[in-house]
Amino acid sequence: MAKLLKKRLKKAGLPPGTLVHIGERKLESARITFIDYDEQNFQEKKLDNIEECFPFKGTPTVTWINIDGLHQTDIIERLGKHFELHPLILEDILNTAQRPKAEDLGNYIFVVLRMLSYNDQAQAVQSEQVSMVLGQSFVISFQENVGDVFEQIRNRLRNGKGRVRKVGADYLVYALLDAIVDSYFIILEKFGEKIEGLEEELIHDPSDEILHQIHTLKRELIGLRKSVWPLRELVGGIERSESALIKESTGMYLRDVYDHTIQVIDTVESYRDMVSGMLDIYLSSISNRMNAVMKVLTIIATIFIPLTFIAGIYGMNFKHMPELEWKFGYAAVLIIMLIVVAIMLIYFRKKKWL
Amino acid sequence: MAKLLKKRLKKAGLPPGTLVHIGERKLESARITFIDYDEQNFQEKKLDNIEECFPFKGTPTVTWINIDGLHQTDIIERLGKHFELHPLILEDILNTAQRPKAEDLGNYIFVVLRMLSYNDQAQAVQSEQVSMVLGQSFVISFQENVGDVFEQIRNRLRNGKGRVRKVGADYLVYALLDAIVDSYFIILEKFGEKIEGLEEELIHDPSDEILHQIHTLKRELIGLRKSVWPLRELVGGIERSESALIKESTGMYLRDVYDHTIQVIDTVESYRDMVSGMLDIYLSSISNRMNAVMKVLTIIATIFIPLTFIAGIYGMNFKHMPELEWKFGYAAVLIIMLIVVAIMLIYFRKKKWL
Amino acid sequence: MAKLLKKRLKKAGLPPGTLVHIGERKLESARITFIDYDEQNFQEKKLDNIEECFPFKGTPTVTWINIDGLHQTDIIERLGKHFELHPLILEDILNTAQRPKAEDLGNYIFVVLRMLSYNDQAQAVQSEQVSMVLGQSFVISFQENVGDVFEQIRNRLRNGKGRVRKVGADYLVYALLDAIVDSYFIILEKFGEKIEGLEEELIHDPSDEILHQIHTLKRELIGLRKSVWPLRELVGGIERSESALIKESTGMYLRDVYDHTIQVIDTVESYRDMVSGMLDIYLSSISNRMNAVMKVLTIIATIFIPLTFIAGIYGMNFKHMPELEWKFGYAAVLIIMLIVVAIMLIYFRKKKWL
Amino acid sequence: MAKLLKKRLKKAGLPPGTLVHIGERKLESARITFIDYDEQNFQEKKLDNIEECFPFKGTPTVTWINIDGLHQTDIIERLGKHFELHPLILEDILNTAQRPKAEDLGNYIFVVLRMLSYNDQAQAVQSEQVSMVLGQSFVISFQENVGDVFEQIRNRLRNGKGRVRKVGADYLVYALLDAIVDSYFIILEKFGEKIEGLEEELIHDPSDEILHQIHTLKRELIGLRKSVWPLRELVGGIERSESALIKESTGMYLRDVYDHTIQVIDTVESYRDMVSGMLDIYLSSISNRMNAVMKVLTIIATIFIPLTFIAGIYGMNFKHMPELEWKFGYAAVLIIMLIVVAIMLIYFRKKKWL
Amino acid sequence: MAKLLKKRLKKAGLPPGTLVHIGERKLESARITFIDYDEQNFQEKKLDNIEECFPFKGTPTVTWINIDGLHQTDIIERLGKHFELHPLILEDILNTAQRPKAEDLGNYIFVVLRMLSYNDQAQAVQSEQVSMVLGQSFVISFQENVGDVFEQIRNRLRNGKGRVRKVGADYLVYALLDAIVDSYFIILEKFGEKIEGLEEELIHDPSDEILHQIHTLKRELIGLRKSVWPLRELVGGIERSESALIKESTGMYLRDVYDHTIQVIDTVESYRDMVSGMLDIYLSSISNRMNAVMKVLTIIATIFIPLTFIAGIYGMNFKHMPELEWKFGYAAVLIIMLIVVAIMLIYFRKKKWL
Repeated sequence: MAKLLKKRLKKAGLPPGTLVHIGERKLESARITFIDYDEQNFQEKKLDNIEECFPFKGTPTVTWINIDGLHQTDIIERLGKHFELHPLILEDILNTAQRPKAEDLGNYIFVVLRMLSYNDQAQAVQSEQVSMVLGQSFVISFQENVGDVFEQIRNRLRNGKGRVRKVGADYLVYALLDAIVDSYFIILEKFGEKIEGLEEELIHDPSDEILHQIHTLKRELIGLRKSVWPLRELVGGIERSESALIKESTGMYLRDVYDHTIQVIDTVESYRDMVSGMLDIYLSSISNRMNAVMKVLTIIATIFIPLTFIAGIYGMNFKHMPELEWKFGYAAVLIIMLIVVAIMLIYFRKKKWL
Repeated sequence: MAKLLKKRLKKAGLPPGTLVHIGERKLESARITFIDYDEQNFQEKKLDNIEECFPFKGTPTVTWINIDGLHQTDIIERLGKHFELHPLILEDILNTAQRPKAEDLGNYIFVVLRMLSYNDQAQAVQSEQVSMVLGQSFVISFQENVGDVFEQIRNRLRNGKGRVRKVGADYLVYALLDAIVDSYFIILEKFGEKIEGLEEELIHDPSDEILHQIHTLKRELIGLRKSVWPLRELVGGIERSESALIKESTGMYLRDVYDHTIQVIDTVESYRDMVSGMLDIYLSSISNRMNAVMKVLTIIATIFIPLTFIAGIYGMNFKHMPELEWKFGYAAVLIIMLIVVAIMLIYFRKKKWL
Repeated sequence: MAKLLKKRLKKAGLPPGTLVHIGERKLESARITFIDYDEQNFQEKKLDNIEECFPFKGTPTVTWINIDGLHQTDIIERLGKHFELHPLILEDILNTAQRPKAEDLGNYIFVVLRMLSYNDQAQAVQSEQVSMVLGQSFVISFQENVGDVFEQIRNRLRNGKGRVRKVGADYLVYALLDAIVDSYFIILEKFGEKIEGLEEELIHDPSDEILHQIHTLKRELIGLRKSVWPLRELVGGIERSESALIKESTGMYLRDVYDHTIQVIDTVESYRDMVSGMLDIYLSSISNRMNAVMKVLTIIATIFIPLTFIAGIYGMNFKHMPELEWKFGYAAVLIIMLIVVAIMLIYFRKKKWL
Repeated sequence: MAKLLKKRLKKAGLPPGTLVHIGERKLESARITFIDYDEQNFQEKKLDNIEECFPFKGTPTVTWINIDGLHQTDIIERLGKHFELHPLILEDILNTAQRPKAEDLGNYIFVVLRMLSYNDQAQAVQSEQVSMVLGQSFVISFQENVGDVFEQIRNRLRNGKGRVRKVGADYLVYALLDAIVDSYFIILEKFGEKIEGLEEELIHDPSDEILHQIHTLKRELIGLRKSVWPLRELVGGIERSESALIKESTGMYLRDVYDHTIQVIDTVESYRDMVSGMLDIYLSSISNRMNAVMKVLTIIATIFIPLTFIAGIYGMNFKHMPELEWKFGYAAVLIIMLIVVAIMLIYFRKKKWL
Repeated sequence: MAKLLKKRLKKAGLPPGTLVHIGERKLESARITFIDYDEQNFQEKKLDNIEECFPFKGTPTVTWINIDGLHQTDIIERLGKHFELHPLILEDILNTAQRPKAEDLGNYIFVVLRMLSYNDQAQAVQSEQVSMVLGQSFVISFQENVGDVFEQIRNRLRNGKGRVRKVGADYLVYALLDAIVDSYFIILEKFGEKIEGLEEELIHDPSDEILHQIHTLKRELIGLRKSVWPLRELVGGIERSESALIKESTGMYLRDVYDHTIQVIDTVESYRDMVSGMLDIYLSSISNRMNAVMKVLTIIATIFIPLTFIAGIYGMNFKHMPELEWKFGYAAVLIIMLIVVAIMLIYFRKKKWL
């Protein structure tokens, strides 16, 4: 995060609407893909030049332009000019530290949120900003990098399966949102596994290492929460919006996504509760261990310190120590020592330390 | 939970409205029961074929179709088609990880919530998703498994006792909801007993085991809370809904269920407070124990270490140690030791360590 | 609480409106008292038969029927039938685990709340459910047991003092509510005294016992809070209700009760904060004590362990140990020991352990 | 507080509107001061008899009656009768445990809040209830004791400086409120100093005493909060009220007081956060200290215990111990001991305990 | 803060609207800069006399007057008189302990907030109050000291770049707000770096010093929060205000600032969560360290205390101790000791203490 803030600073002071890419450059050059369809027709192209898609702006077919890679600001600028996007919207698209939100600008709706994926190697959540512009019969989506969770939607479009080819651009945006929110469940599952794993470990071997793992988990959940909480408002906002761009029949679908976001949020909150509980358990375990250590020390020390003292007494070199001369002095002392030990053990047993 | 998330993932990417059962298969084959009644007539059947109940859709008598087992998605699909249920609703019925909710879809109301039961053997709460569709003079209910809390409602229907036969389908839905919420009190009672038991144990024997029991209880309460909190909104939503399907006279009954859900929520919250308090007590008890252990160690060590030192002095082998030659040297040393012990004991008594 | 839940369960599954007494039977037989008054007339009777009061239903005088003891459900049923009370309301009256609430049912208002008293012997709060029905010129109140906080209201009615005889039934209900809320201040005072007592003890003698007292207090406050929080909504609800049963002039009085409930709630919350603070203090005190114990152990041990070692050196039996032959060897060793002690004491003083 | 609750109890059960002074009697006899002014005229008197001010009720000049001392309930009763104050309002004035609030009663507005002052000797906040009644061209204020924060307002009235003489009674009430809220900043400053002082101490010498100081501070903040939180609603309520008694021009001034109350609340909340933080620091410091103590004990003990053991070996009296006969046996043992010490010191240094 | 409260007190009791500078005097004399522009023209001056800018009040060009230094109250008073600012607004400008807020006064909007900068030398956040008055075609800004974050806006005005010269005074206020909120990201970045640094340190070397750093960070975040939270309301308030002074086209820009403030608030909250987590980690680390120390002590002590006891036994001087005469007595004892040590080590290994 600190890194993004730093990038952001480079821009501070520039006039609003100045297009500067704030984020990591993840690609050599931007990749533009173009899909145009209605119930009968379907067309898919990889564009070298953003201008190729301009003629499709006014057509009744649904046009979906997807751009991977945000560092070539001129592409986004030309696109923005042609589709009449507000400069501040273009700025938001380029700034990859946006808070998820939806904005209704009259002739188009702008949505920005985060797409999450789990990198099994790094054992960490990876996150990429996705922005979408929903206009009259067109959708433009912007991603930071190639690779996304939309492949199955593309397949449905190609095969003409499901509702998606029969209905408008608003349904496409719904489908994209749904795919993103669905992908959150993968992340949640990974977290769930991690938590279960940690709990197992916690009970059987509360090592020093585990504390840092709990802490890391906690921080990741703080991060996840930041991506997830605003979604509720985002989806709810689109659903309740009275924009003519959202058909009434799509409302039901958006409510479905809304339910999913609430489920995601609920699960994240439960996880937070669980992780807090694990910290408590961890701390108690440490206390318990220390207790166990102390008990052993106490038992050994309290048994042997008095015995050693008795031995010390008869190790003194006084001339006149009658006991030393007794025939069974030594045996008597050993017996006394045994009695002392027995008393101690009974006391400890009574105290439930043994 | 992690398991359900995993199941869910199988579905991610399929077009919305695709019917896939997300959950455990708990039955060989679905069991369909059918009840049709009005004030005078009553009819109850076990159906082999879902189509048998289709003719009852338009009749003025109240029809209650109950389906146990969700894995045969074709049954639900055919049923849905005949009763004109939205594909997303069917999807919600099949996905057994739903958050409790009520949705008014105009010509029917959809309700999904969880039915809880306590498995005494496993000492754990078992949970099953129940969905209901309330239409004009019909109710369709879906359960994951056979066995439910509705038997007494069926008996009342059979015997024609109470209001239930005299009033419409909305009252039946109320009765089902009421039965489910009432069953929560059984769970709460079990938790109450567990908490009381743990508190007893906590005071008399704060063992290591108890910490894990408290932790388990806490997690179960987090789970219970997730089932219970949305109920308030659910019942309140139905009560306040202006649907023509809910008669005014039923409002009073729904408000009664609403009061019960609030009581359930209140009790869950109190339990959470109590369990937190128990954790505090537990940690304090551990500290106290450690204190007690330390005190014994300190007392033994501080008494005997100086004495052993004195004995050590007179165990030295110096040629010229006049005390060793004294006649009452040994006696004198023993007396000095006693004085040291006396001083220590007085000091400890003053410090209230004894 | 677990007990009440258990009782409740007996009823689960019965048709709604079935009258079953859920609670402890505290009386041999129900006691019915009857008061009828207007500005000029006053009449007070103990009824053997609930039907005796039925003729007073329509009269312009204010009729107050009070019933102590809820287990004779037939009395309540007949009363309910005559005064046209909804079966669910009768059920609420009989179920003594109600959450405090007020309900406006058009031709009467139903109020249920808890009357608290402090049992000095048991050192515990005792609680009894009170329900009231306010109709056109009549008030019916139900209590679990004889003995209440209304005696002074009865005296005012008998003597014709104060406003109470001049105004209607709504004012009587206000007076009853006011008496109950006023009685909460007695409970609060008891808690205040307990807290002050515990704080004193905490500072002077943080014993093991005190932890359980703090814990008990905390639980009692959780219980009190459950009775007290819903009151705010209850009184506020009646005040804001637009029922014709509540005269405008009574509004001012209800607002006064409302202020008192807020004061009660505020005080309960403050007490909770204080009790939490006490727990912190207690835990710190334990830590401090342990610190003190450890310090003594450390000082004694660190002083004597090296000295004992020195003595041990010269207790060895080597043939060739020149120091042992020296004339002032013994004295020298004693002096060395003194020097070691002095250095240690200076070190401890520097570290502020002494 | 417990004391006030006890006083309150004396009244429980009396009819509402019975005038009983609940609070400490702080004065011999009530002191009544009277100020009457408009832009041209100013008159100030000390009244012996409350009736003297009655003729000024209807006049167009602003009349301010201030009463110090509340135990002479007859004065307040006569005043209340003449100015037509509701009996419940008079009761609120006399009950000095009121929660701050403002009530609009149509022909007058009633305000009650607390005036705080800091007693430097007792090192404690002192608090006094102030009630005000704002009517058409009159203000009546009630205080528990002589001495207030209004002296500068009186001076401005006497000198005819500022707006106060030119505008109406509502501005006077504003000025009084403003003076009270301003006086809270003095209390906040005292708390701020205390907190800074405690933090200094905490870092340099976390004594046992400081824990009780933190606890006391925490409790005082709980108390302050109780006085301060309702102010927001109080001032906001007056500002938003549509009473004809509040001129529009005064709204701006009330908003200013409102901002100040928010600032007071914010500061109290920050202080609470800081005090919580201090408790954490304190507890950590204790842990650190204990750690330091333990380290010294461990180092001394782990160094000398093995050495003492070695010395003990050669203090044994076996006939056949060849080492004892060696010429350099003693020297060898001393050297071995030095080596053991060296190894230990290296180990401790590696563990960063030294 | 305590200092500002103290300053404030000097003013307590003065009539409202009295102009007193509450804050530190940071400048010799106030510096007045004046900028006047429209799309074609641009004029910038340093004024010696505030009256020089008065003629520009009514002109259609946008006039921006900036005043650095608040102690010369007469300048502000004359300015206020000419531009018809309410005395309470002037008071707010001079009181540098204002809570951030925006107020719509009809013919002008008043905004006050804090400009933050990070002093790298002092390693602390520095804060300065900025007030702005937006009128019909004029903006007046007040700062405590020279040096601000507006230089780039001035440059844009000078060069005529961007929208700023083409649009009205409301856009200028937006630009100033935007610059201030943008500067918060610099502060956030510094905090982010600090937190990351502390976390590193925490893991590798949880020293005593770090606790105070965490505490300081926590306090700074409390302070930052106080500046940042009200911003949301402030910007949201301006955006939603229906003032004619805010053109519709500016709304979009204000919404952008609003998003940024939410992002700032979110980040501050995340930081608070992280710092709390760090405290937990710190405390656990201390516990772990103590555990490690205790373990070493226990191992050494439990191994050597029994051995020393055995040695003590054979150091006794009894006449009749047969073992002492045995040929291999010494060797046998040494072997026994080795066995004891071996048993102990196995026990410790089993307990996972080694």
